[in-house]
Amino acid sequence: MAAHYVVRSVERADAGTIAALGEAGVATAHEVAGRVGLLGPEVRPRQDGAVIAGSAITVSCHPGDNLMIHAAVEVCRPGDVLVVTTTSPSTDGMFGDLLATSLMSRGVLGIVIDAGVRDIASLREMGFPVWSRAVHAQGTVKASPGSVNVPVVVAGRLVRPGDIVVADDDGVLALPAATGPAVVAAAARRTENERTKREKLAGGTLGVDLYDLRPLLAKLGVEYVDRLPEGGGA
Amino acid sequence: MAAHYVVRSVERADAGTIAALGEAGVATAHEVAGRVGLLGPEVRPRQDGAVIAGSAITVSCHPGDNLMIHAAVEVCRPGDVLVVTTTSPSTDGMFGDLLATSLMSRGVLGIVIDAGVRDIASLREMGFPVWSRAVHAQGTVKASPGSVNVPVVVAGRLVRPGDIVVADDDGVLALPAATGPAVVAAAARRTENERTKREKLAGGTLGVDLYDLRPLLAKLGVEYVDRLPEGGGA
Amino acid sequence: MAAHYVVRSVERADAGTIAALGEAGVATAHEVAGRVGLLGPEVRPRQDGAVIAGSAITVSCHPGDNLMIHAAVEVCRPGDVLVVTTTSPSTDGMFGDLLATSLMSRGVLGIVIDAGVRDIASLREMGFPVWSRAVHAQGTVKASPGSVNVPVVVAGRLVRPGDIVVADDDGVLALPAATGPAVVAAAARRTENERTKREKLAGGTLGVDLYDLRPLLAKLGVEYVDRLPEGGGA
Amino acid sequence: MAAHYVVRSVERADAGTIAALGEAGVATAHEVAGRVGLLGPEVRPRQDGAVIAGSAITVSCHPGDNLMIHAAVEVCRPGDVLVVTTTSPSTDGMFGDLLATSLMSRGVLGIVIDAGVRDIASLREMGFPVWSRAVHAQGTVKASPGSVNVPVVVAGRLVRPGDIVVADDDGVLALPAATGPAVVAAAARRTENERTKREKLAGGTLGVDLYDLRPLLAKLGVEYVDRLPEGGGA
Amino acid sequence: MAAHYVVRSVERADAGTIAALGEAGVATAHEVAGRVGLLGPEVRPRQDGAVIAGSAITVSCHPGDNLMIHAAVEVCRPGDVLVVTTTSPSTDGMFGDLLATSLMSRGVLGIVIDAGVRDIASLREMGFPVWSRAVHAQGTVKASPGSVNVPVVVAGRLVRPGDIVVADDDGVLALPAATGPAVVAAAARRTENERTKREKLAGGTLGVDLYDLRPLLAKLGVEYVDRLPEGGGA
Amino acid sequence: MAAHYVVRSVERADAGTIAALGEAGVATAHEVAGRVGLLGPEVRPRQDGAVIAGSAITVSCHPGDNLMIHAAVEVCRPGDVLVVTTTSPSTDGMFGDLLATSLMSRGVLGIVIDAGVRDIASLREMGFPVWSRAVHAQGTVKASPGSVNVPVVVAGRLVRPGDIVVADDDGVLALPAATGPAVVAAAARRTENERTKREKLAGGTLGVDLYDLRPLLAKLGVEYVDRLPEGGGA
Repeated sequence: MAAHYVVRSVERADAGTIAALGEAGVATAHEVAGRVGLLGPEVRPRQDGAVIAGSAITVSCHPGDNLMIHAAVEVCRPGDVLVVTTTSPSTDGMFGDLLATSLMSRGVLGIVIDAGVRDIASLREMGFPVWSRAVHAQGTVKASPGSVNVPVVVAGRLVRPGDIVVADDDGVLALPAATGPAVVAAAARRTENERTKREKLAGGTLGVDLYDLRPLLAKLGVEYVDRLPEGGGA
Repeated sequence: MAAHYVVRSVERADAGTIAALGEAGVATAHEVAGRVGLLGPEVRPRQDGAVIAGSAITVSCHPGDNLMIHAAVEVCRPGDVLVVTTTSPSTDGMFGDLLATSLMSRGVLGIVIDAGVRDIASLREMGFPVWSRAVHAQGTVKASPGSVNVPVVVAGRLVRPGDIVVADDDGVLALPAATGPAVVAAAARRTENERTKREKLAGGTLGVDLYDLRPLLAKLGVEYVDRLPEGGGA
Repeated sequence: MAAHYVVRSVERADAGTIAALGEAGVATAHEVAGRVGLLGPEVRPRQDGAVIAGSAITVSCHPGDNLMIHAAVEVCRPGDVLVVTTTSPSTDGMFGDLLATSLMSRGVLGIVIDAGVRDIASLREMGFPVWSRAVHAQGTVKASPGSVNVPVVVAGRLVRPGDIVVADDDGVLALPAATGPAVVAAAARRTENERTKREKLAGGTLGVDLYDLRPLLAKLGVEYVDRLPEGGGA
Repeated sequence: MAAHYVVRSVERADAGTIAALGEAGVATAHEVAGRVGLLGPEVRPRQDGAVIAGSAITVSCHPGDNLMIHAAVEVCRPGDVLVVTTTSPSTDGMFGDLLATSLMSRGVLGIVIDAGVRDIASLREMGFPVWSRAVHAQGTVKASPGSVNVPVVVAGRLVRPGDIVVADDDGVLALPAATGPAVVAAAARRTENERTKREKLAGGTLGVDLYDLRPLLAKLGVEYVDRLPEGGGA
Repeated sequence: MAAHYVVRSVERADAGTIAALGEAGVATAHEVAGRVGLLGPEVRPRQDGAVIAGSAITVSCHPGDNLMIHAAVEVCRPGDVLVVTTTSPSTDGMFGDLLATSLMSRGVLGIVIDAGVRDIASLREMGFPVWSRAVHAQGTVKASPGSVNVPVVVAGRLVRPGDIVVADDDGVLALPAATGPAVVAAAARRTENERTKREKLAGGTLGVDLYDLRPLLAKLGVEYVDRLPEGGGA
Repeated sequence: MAAHYVVRSVERADAGTIAALGEAGVATAHEVAGRVGLLGPEVRPRQDGAVIAGSAITVSCHPGDNLMIHAAVEVCRPGDVLVVTTTSPSTDGMFGDLLATSLMSRGVLGIVIDAGVRDIASLREMGFPVWSRAVHAQGTVKASPGSVNVPVVVAGRLVRPGDIVVADDDGVLALPAATGPAVVAAAARRTENERTKREKLAGGTLGVDLYDLRPLLAKLGVEYVDRLPEGGGA
């Protein structure tokens, strides 16, 4: 009943917006976007220091079967990020250096996958960054149908084709393309605002004063004492 | 009923004792302290090679709320280590580069947190070491009361304010300040003792001989054979 | 009833075969061996870039007790790899730099352990590679019997004494010594075959064409569309 | 930026379709729907034998905060099922017997929640069925905004307001309302078909014959032997 | 250095206070105690419907070693609850029907254990309730020292000897004996208060009105709409 | 290279031995067998009170593919127990009521599976007992080769075809058929011995006296005190 599709056409955000979100980084972009779109911490970077921002090409695979990743390559363009999930949990190594070679030849920036990857040493050497649930050499088959460019759930969060994907050492963020420009503007403000705050905090100003938290602490019943009363504290 | 407190006064061990435990390292200090005070392995270093030793400033937060970390900064002194827990399990990114800037300006050495952190690339660049349960960009609020410098449970172990905290690539250890001098003395003996053992082992002496384990193996019924008997071995 | 044994004699594969499998690497060797013998992803490398291949000396320990690792040192030869498990799950730090010193003096290449290790900074400095379930400073006793060179289960897979063990950034593989030569031959063919494929993929040939997957996709009912139909896709 | 909404209007499937899917059960409905919409196994029934089918009222909460569950009650109608998630992982007991009393008074059939519940003994006594990630007495606050009747991710799968939710001892399924009638028809065919198969299998017919699997086994290289060859089998 | 002790003398709360907390149950007592003392959800009831309340006799064991449980029996009195932890994580079956027989003969009400139990069918038949991390037949030794009636950490929370322990289907709570009377009084008020609320909610009053949450929802920016705006909701 | 086999011939233990081990139960049989052969606690009973003992028919499947379970039915005889694993971790529902019907028609007693099952309500009604890693309605394909009656690793332990499998509320045990008679004899002695001990313990004799543990406690340095010394206890 549920037909499987490879959807060729994806609406992508403009390159300037995407680049600006990559510069903002996952934590800042997530904040100013209203704390939506962040993937769970179980999908982790498999290298240090890589930062990418691009458009999501989504892939839904049967666990242990990477047929649909192969089918997805064709619809990728330079600046895309492959976002792969499986229809039930799996740690199999569904992605390795051959597929990475193919994706790099099309200008794909990296992969986010809620499953395993392998050939991790080669991937690091090639400079093809990976965010995955596991590293596992367990190979896969090419036998089961799935879909490309349908909404998918990755590490507990919904990702749509064309979403702006930002990934760095803090994790992975996926935002609807349409929200990009507003997030970029807000990110610029926040980055500037944080620079000011950072200077003040570096100079010794306390956060409780900078953010005016003392009245809140008082209202919540937090008492300042020199010694802990018997049985107190939680 | 359970009031919340920020306790200002903490009894710290003397700096020499603390430094000596840092040099001994987590594994050695844990051994000679009688194998107490070691946090569970789920709180892991988020950088390679960092070693810190300091006095615990403890913080108990509502999950997803870092108000009390802000409240804790004020009571920190140079040489302290922030030790943070939440009242129910959380992987939210409760700590990032702004709070680290604030803590560094007060001479705090690092943070141990049974929750998530973010801005991890900046934290590595700043040289502010972190031991945490997760890395996650998920932000938090500043809305719920908690306490500073009360006993807390972190990664399954009890940590008290003023405990000597040692953290390195092997994990995190928290020892009562009062036990420090005795542990330092024992650590020096063990380090010397291990140097001798290491030389012997490097020279080819077997551990079963060095530790005189052959009689124990015999008493436990361990047999040396050339081939495994049918159905044998466990 | 279940006697405990230290079995002295182990049949090892020849050095050339072992070295060839190390060059093939875990992912390739696992593939051509028919996808058998791969340990679960929970046992992970504790350093980047190390690659070893050797003969398995297996050790079965009581959890929290490393007596039998000490007993195993004596039966190790240059080119061996220690493969350690416990009879119930444990993350205790059963292995550290003293035992590593002893093993290095006998030419052992590294350790694979379904438990914890400690002294991890020293182990990295010494260049003694480790694949383990955890890093934890928790020490152990030397009190309970176990066995050396019996079949053991490590990370969910069976390892026999003398198995060829290959370990790299992708994980750990253990293959019966007898299957080595055939695997080596197949690995060479696969490596050559992958080189050809890599060139084609790098040149822009699509995997769906290279592997002739279009007929399969069609047979499985995967449709190519420009827009996702209402309610479609999985 | 991300505004929070309580959406009052939900398009529900007709009652007959929903009831028919409840009779089909989760496993059958999931099969005939093309294996989509099944929540992960981490959300489990907290009683034996309960079966419900209804329309999803979705709720997105801040972890540890059940304000939006309270806000959701008002938009529920008889025959609805509450489907709750949190914006980061939590096991706090966000739901108990008071909320269940309120929901029962509005004819709600049960709750599916990707977090914890409490008062579980009372809930069982009241006959209000629960599918949850945890049972935990940890209480929550009513302080943070969220949304009602927006798309949510629960146990790794997307659930939309108005989805037909079927829950039984096998887990939880959520299907778009529009696909209901087709799934019902297919389920009836499958149930009938399985009845026939069950009779044949009970009579001793083998599945390999009933499903004509012998040619496939032969093609895949599976050999029938009386004894296992040396080193064979995986 | 860290000596091991069996502490004979424990200050227990009075029987009336303990009984009253048992009647209040874990969820209510935890609430009115200020949400402290609740063990993590990983320690679960191994039977349905059991409710106990008693005084904690605490036991700290080496993992896989139940010697100290045997040592603890002697210091138990009628109305006590055994609370057992291990010094590193373990799921071994440290407790079974023989130890339960011994404890029942001394009037002990049940056991809370951050490890495994076995003979679970017999324990259910005997009516000796168990809250544990696991059920596992894996046996243990009686070889390593530990302590009885020292502060222990169980499922991530601190439990002191003499603490009032309440355990039911919702989990396990441990409160300092001294706080008992105040908690009992507050629990009675809450139970009465909840009865009133339950009647109102059963009668159709909405929680948002009963708790006056509409102004808060408005202040937090939660909008009531008939249809979800494009891109809205989180 | 690794051929896949269905091995038809299995050496089974005699029925009397198997029945006697079933009466002894998992915990007792595991003890007297020398604490070998116990599966990990992650494979759990999915009903209360079922006890089975039979001969293992082992099945190795590709994850998400139950083709080989179908292939295994043919080689089963009355009194067998199906023992199923997958070549990488999976929670998919690989087994349901149709396969159970087929197995019951051949006299198979139950199934032990390191993966998921579904139709769990029907299975309970049919009286076909299950020990599994998960309950999940997620269906599987019949497409990948595997083997029947080869050694398999299930929940971390090795199971061989023809092993005596005992499963009850405490878990699952698999013992080599050859060791059966000796285990039966030892189990009878232990059961008798435990009956005597149980009577003594029920009568108030302490375990520390019954097992003569006081000298050991003294030797290990465990001190009996009335109050805990400052800083003591672990």
